[in-house]
Amino acid sequence: MRTLRFALFTVMLLFLPLGVRAQYAERAASTEIKAVMQKSAEDWNRGDLNAFAACYKNSPDILLIGTTISRGYDSMLQTYRTYYGTKDKMGVLSYSEFEVQSLDAKFATATGHFHLERTSAGGGSADGFYLLVFEKTPQGWKIIRDDSTVIRPAPAK
Amino acid sequence: MRTLRFALFTVMLLFLPLGVRAQYAERAASTEIKAVMQKSAEDWNRGDLNAFAACYKNSPDILLIGTTISRGYDSMLQTYRTYYGTKDKMGVLSYSEFEVQSLDAKFATATGHFHLERTSAGGGSADGFYLLVFEKTPQGWKIIRDDSTVIRPAPAK
Repeated sequence: MRTLRFALFTVMLLFLPLGVRAQYAERAASTEIKAVMQKSAEDWNRGDLNAFAACYKNSPDILLIGTTISRGYDSMLQTYRTYYGTKDKMGVLSYSEFEVQSLDAKFATATGHFHLERTSAGGGSADGFYLLVFEKTPQGWKIIRDDSTVIRPAPAK
Repeated sequence: MRTLRFALFTVMLLFLPLGVRAQYAERAASTEIKAVMQKSAEDWNRGDLNAFAACYKNSPDILLIGTTISRGYDSMLQTYRTYYGTKDKMGVLSYSEFEVQSLDAKFATATGHFHLERTSAGGGSADGFYLLVFEKTPQGWKIIRDDSTVIRPAPAK
């Protein structure tokens, strides 16, 4: 009986309109990418820069754009180490207004607001926007382009 | 004879390794996207905001990210009108270090540096970086995401 139900379900899936299947895929991508971002914030807030960096694809072609352009995984990690080398400088990171837009089955973009809560010793708090491009890799959705901008340094504590 | 040559050329193209064909496609995309950017700068520098805006896809889903997020073609155009409503405020726009990276046949990202030369009456000169996502549409390559950041306002003239 269970096998029959499963077979019927599979057949139903095959006959779902393409648009509906695309919607399912888009929702799944959005859920998976949100989980990547949540994990990255948790890793950051634990002060674990190496774990945080795993949200990026380990590739020489990725870009991290801020006040300069860093190309490749090693350069991206070095940039983070330079600006956020201590727990104080990392502060507490949170995302809001996060939104994913699928491009196709393999690529998606995401945008939103970030807030960095930091002591004045750590560099003071800051807010900003970002545009991320994600690629679906065998290791899951990974960031391949990141343009992040501080829009107004929040008043230091 | 000419027909035979064309037929041979077509057959040769069919048998080109996939990697080589991908390289050709990537180079063509890069050339076409650079032409879009050059035209957009020329339109901007003529003070023609409507012509400039044609480098964006006419879609309600596009994003223009600066100090706020504008969604959709109309909102993008309104943002430009608000901040760059006069020839003085538009100044002279130039791009440098422009680089295109293909994602697949339909999508590509581009990054580079911009310089806006303006009188102090126009708001002063500015420099910045940007990350663009392009989509190949029936009307050619169009920007669907734009995150542009002023990194250091240049001294006013």
